[in-house]
Amino acid sequence: MSEIDRMLEANQRWLDDFPGDVPVAPARKVAVVACMDSRMPLFGMLGLEIGDAHVIRNAGGVITDDTLRSLAISQHLLGTREVVLVHHTDCGLQKSTDEEFADLVERTTGHRPPWPARAFTDVDADVRESVRLVTESPYLLSTEVRGTVYDVATGKLREVR
Amino acid sequence: MSEIDRMLEANQRWLDDFPGDVPVAPARKVAVVACMDSRMPLFGMLGLEIGDAHVIRNAGGVITDDTLRSLAISQHLLGTREVVLVHHTDCGLQKSTDEEFADLVERTTGHRPPWPARAFTDVDADVRESVRLVTESPYLLSTEVRGTVYDVATGKLREVR
Repeated sequence: MSEIDRMLEANQRWLDDFPGDVPVAPARKVAVVACMDSRMPLFGMLGLEIGDAHVIRNAGGVITDDTLRSLAISQHLLGTREVVLVHHTDCGLQKSTDEEFADLVERTTGHRPPWPARAFTDVDADVRESVRLVTESPYLLSTEVRGTVYDVATGKLREVR
Repeated sequence: MSEIDRMLEANQRWLDDFPGDVPVAPARKVAVVACMDSRMPLFGMLGLEIGDAHVIRNAGGVITDDTLRSLAISQHLLGTREVVLVHHTDCGLQKSTDEEFADLVERTTGHRPPWPARAFTDVDADVRESVRLVTESPYLLSTEVRGTVYDVATGKLREVR
């Protein structure tokens, strides 16, 4: 059975608990930008309810043009103002470099990707850089931008200052 | 109290239920690409457990260079192969156009964004276009790419064919 078929089946069970419709604009006026890592169920980890917050995720939880596009839509069209960044320990992007990754993709597919992997070594430094990029974006209306690191071994969220 | 302080407090309760560490590579070898919408708790909706799947999310769940970067890392570094797209009804990106959005950001901040909003009208057509972009990317190793629309009013997930 393919994964999507399992998900469509699981969705039948979700319908029994479905709490009903809520407005499109996030109730807590916050957007979360997090890594795509499979070990971060953000709703449970952060105490979010349906309708509370936008959730933007990519490899590393890094700030790219696409992250800024999503945050701009979140803020200008749907009224969020705070931004919370969630990076984590044991990230796949700490296990490679941009050069090694491009070599790997080229070796495997015959095509060298035009975008860097955005590998990093120090997770706290990467969070601070992401906070800076969001804070300094001229297209946003953020009132508060703060960053955290989630420990995938313990479940603990720690703020980076 | 700021939103991040509420999240850090909620995380204390999460620690009581934390199920423990699991490997970084997704167990079900699947990546989900979804919209950032606040009404989609993907783990519950799709029956995902911690460690099952990568979760990539942006405004619209659209395929950008950053989505392809994330999928390439997911596949080449962490072994996923299937891709499931999740768009949804009542999307914020259906309520504006790229031009209107750029005008709004420029009027509000004084700066016109260099990236389009990626607004759309027909959600099924947008899902099919996203499936095509992932399927045709020369940098990926996808074995199966399928798309869905989530109904935020009923909780039901529907495959787009």
